[in-house]
Amino acid sequence: MALIVQKYGGTSVATTDRIKAVAQRVARYLSQGDQVVVVVSAMSGVTDRLIGMAKEMMDLPTEREMDMLLATGEQTTIALTAMALHAMGIPAASLTGAQAGITTDGVHSKAKIRNITPAQVRAHLDEGKVVIVAGFQGRTNEGQITTLGRGGSDLTAIAMAAALEADLCQIYTDVDGVYTADPRVVPEARKLEEISYDEMLELASSGAKVMQSRSVEFAKKFGVIFEVRSSLNDNPGTIVKESSADMENVVVRGVSLDKNQAKVTLENVPDHPGIAASIFKPLSDASVNVDMIVQNVSHDGGQRSTDLSFTVEKTDLAKALKVLEAQKERIGYQQITSDENICKLSVVGVGMRSHSGVAAKLFEVLSEAGVNILMISTSEIKISVVVQAGDGESALQKAHHAFVGG
Amino acid sequence: MALIVQKYGGTSVATTDRIKAVAQRVARYLSQGDQVVVVVSAMSGVTDRLIGMAKEMMDLPTEREMDMLLATGEQTTIALTAMALHAMGIPAASLTGAQAGITTDGVHSKAKIRNITPAQVRAHLDEGKVVIVAGFQGRTNEGQITTLGRGGSDLTAIAMAAALEADLCQIYTDVDGVYTADPRVVPEARKLEEISYDEMLELASSGAKVMQSRSVEFAKKFGVIFEVRSSLNDNPGTIVKESSADMENVVVRGVSLDKNQAKVTLENVPDHPGIAASIFKPLSDASVNVDMIVQNVSHDGGQRSTDLSFTVEKTDLAKALKVLEAQKERIGYQQITSDENICKLSVVGVGMRSHSGVAAKLFEVLSEAGVNILMISTSEIKISVVVQAGDGESALQKAHHAFVGG
Repeated sequence: MALIVQKYGGTSVATTDRIKAVAQRVARYLSQGDQVVVVVSAMSGVTDRLIGMAKEMMDLPTEREMDMLLATGEQTTIALTAMALHAMGIPAASLTGAQAGITTDGVHSKAKIRNITPAQVRAHLDEGKVVIVAGFQGRTNEGQITTLGRGGSDLTAIAMAAALEADLCQIYTDVDGVYTADPRVVPEARKLEEISYDEMLELASSGAKVMQSRSVEFAKKFGVIFEVRSSLNDNPGTIVKESSADMENVVVRGVSLDKNQAKVTLENVPDHPGIAASIFKPLSDASVNVDMIVQNVSHDGGQRSTDLSFTVEKTDLAKALKVLEAQKERIGYQQITSDENICKLSVVGVGMRSHSGVAAKLFEVLSEAGVNILMISTSEIKISVVVQAGDGESALQKAHHAFVGG
Repeated sequence: MALIVQKYGGTSVATTDRIKAVAQRVARYLSQGDQVVVVVSAMSGVTDRLIGMAKEMMDLPTEREMDMLLATGEQTTIALTAMALHAMGIPAASLTGAQAGITTDGVHSKAKIRNITPAQVRAHLDEGKVVIVAGFQGRTNEGQITTLGRGGSDLTAIAMAAALEADLCQIYTDVDGVYTADPRVVPEARKLEEISYDEMLELASSGAKVMQSRSVEFAKKFGVIFEVRSSLNDNPGTIVKESSADMENVVVRGVSLDKNQAKVTLENVPDHPGIAASIFKPLSDASVNVDMIVQNVSHDGGQRSTDLSFTVEKTDLAKALKVLEAQKERIGYQQITSDENICKLSVVGVGMRSHSGVAAKLFEVLSEAGVNILMISTSEIKISVVVQAGDGESALQKAHHAFVGG
C-alpha cells in the first residue's frame, strides 16, 4: 500500500465532467490498495473571472483581499471533487489549505510555506478517506488566508508529499512529461523517463514551461521524488529525482529554447569597481529579472571602459530601458542599445560535470550551421548561447540531433 | 461614536455596482464618526449556481461538502466589498465566519452558533478599519466549515452585534421595514416605527416573511436592538426591541395572512391518553412542522372519540398524509381528510396581554363580513383563525381596518 499525492491543475478540473474523470483516476489507484491525497487548482477560467470582478472594484486591489477572493477558487474545486468521489461510493473529505495545516509567511499573493502540520489530513486518511486539499493557498500563524503565487498548487502537492512522507507525488498536467526538447519544434524529441532536480531547474529557467522553479527547488530540498504526467491518458510520465551515477552517464539530458528574452547592451561603461552594482541594483529595485550577463574585456583606450550586455524577459524590456536611461549620468555609459530579435538556446545535463567538450561541440555544431553566437553563458550543468531569433529553431534541432540523437 | 453592525442580503450585493452602493452607505456612517461592521450574504444567484454544480456531481451531496462549497459565496462578497471600500480610500478588512470567531456546533447546513470570540474583528476595528464579515458561516471547534441555514446571515449580524455589544444592528433588505400588514394586500398598511421581539416572532410565524424566527429569538435572548430597513433608500426602518409599557398601549401591532397552510382532519379518533403523541410523534420524526392544533370535545357515543384538526405547510401536506395513513391502525382514526384551500389570519400585539375583547371583536368583524371561521387558536399576544382561502384577503383588510385603522 503506497501513499500517493496527486496534483491536478486547472485544465484537469475545468468542468464537472473533468472532475469526474479525476475521481475515476483516483478510484483506480484506490483499487490497487493505495491511499490518495489529491491537490487541486481552481477550475480553469474561475481565477480570471474573480480577477475580473476585482478589477471592477479597483485597479490595484490589495493583495490581502485578492488572496481572500482567489482562495474561493480552489475551495470550490475541492468540494466538487469530494462530491464526485462520494457519487462513486468512495469516502472522501475536502480540506482548505488552512485546514490541511499549510502555514505560510504573511506575504500575500506570493507567500512562502513555513511548515505543514497535516494532522487533519492524516486523521481523514486513517479513516480510510481520500483527502482533497486546496492547492495554492495557506494561512499565516495569525489565521490570515494567503496564496502561494504562480505554480502554487504544484508547491502544495510537493510540500504535502514531503510532510506526509508520501511514497510518490504525481503532478498531472496536459503534457505527457518532460521531453528532451519541445516536440513542437523538434519532432524527434522523446519523453524522458527520469530527470534530476538540477536539470529540471535549468530547463525551467531556460524556457521549458513544465513547472515553476520554486516547486522543483522545494522537492530537491526535501528529497521529494515526483512524476510529471498527463491527466488525459495513462502513459507513465517523467520521474524527477536526485541525480544518480547512472544519470550522470548521460551527458546531455535535453535542450531548450527561450524566445522570451531580449538583449540590452551598455556601450563604453567606465570600468571601475561598483559599476555592475550601479547598473543591476536599480533594475532589481524595479523587479526586472536579469538572466545572462556578459562583460567584455576592457577597451585599450586612455580611460578604461567596457561593453556590458545582459538579457531580460521581453515584457520587462521597456521598464529596464527606462530605469537605465534615468541612470545614464550616474552609470556613465555612452550609449544603450537593445535587441528583441534574439533567443536563448540551452543544453542541459548533469553529465556535463564529468564530461568535457560539450561547449566545444555546441560551438562546432552552430558554426557548421552558420549560426552566429551573440552571447555565451555557462554553469556546471548548462551551456546557454544567445542567437538571432531566426536561427533559434534550426539551431535547437541541430543541437538536439548532435547531443540527444534521434 | 456608535458601533453599528450592518447586514446586507443577497439582492443588496447582487452586482459589483450594488456592492459599490453598499460601500457608499458605509462611508456615510463613517463620516458621522461611527464604527461599522458589515455582514454580507452571497451575491444573489451565486448560491444557486454552486448548488447547480453540486447537483451535477450527485443528487444528494453530503452536507459537509455543501458547506465547504457554499461558504465560498460569502467569502467572494466580503473580498469584493473590502475592495469597494479601499477604492474609496477607506481602510477595511474582510473576515470569513471562522476568522470572525463564529464557533458553531457540527450540524452541517444548519449549524447553531455556540459562541463568538471576535478578537480579530476588534483588532481591525481598533486599527480604524471597517470590518466585513462573511454571513451564514462559522466553524466548529475542530476547524470544520459550517453554514447556519436559512436566514443565517441575519443571525450572523445579530450574534456579532451581541458579541461586540454594538450600539445598533441594521438589517438591510428590499423592504422599508415591518408593516402593519402586507401593503400589497392592504394598501393603507403603514410601516411600524417599532415592534417588540414577541410581536415580530408571532408575525414571522404567521406568514410575514421579513426575517426567520431564529434570528429574532437570538436577538431577544441577548437583548440586541435591531432595525429592519431598505438598502434602496435612506428611509428609517422599523426598530425591533423588547416591549415597553408604551408599546403595550397599542393593542394590535399588525395583522398577517399565511396562505401556505393546509388543514388535516382526523375523524373519530379514540379519545384516550397518549393519542396526541401517537399522531404528532411520527409527524415530528418525518420533520413535518405542525402549526395550529384543534381538538374538539368528545362525541357522546358509546366509545369516546373525537375529531382532531391541525395545519401544516402546504409543501409538507403529502408527506403528512402519507405518514398518518401508514399509522391508521395504530392511531385508530376512522377517516382522514385534508383541505389546501385555506389560509390563516393572525392579529398580533403585546397590548393584548392587558386588553380583553380582541378575540370577540375579531369574530364580530369576520361575522359581519360573512366569513366562516374553520379553526381558532390563541396565544397571549396573538389570535389566529383559519378561513377559506377565498375569504382571506378581504378578511385581512377588514381586520386591519378594525384594529389598526387607516
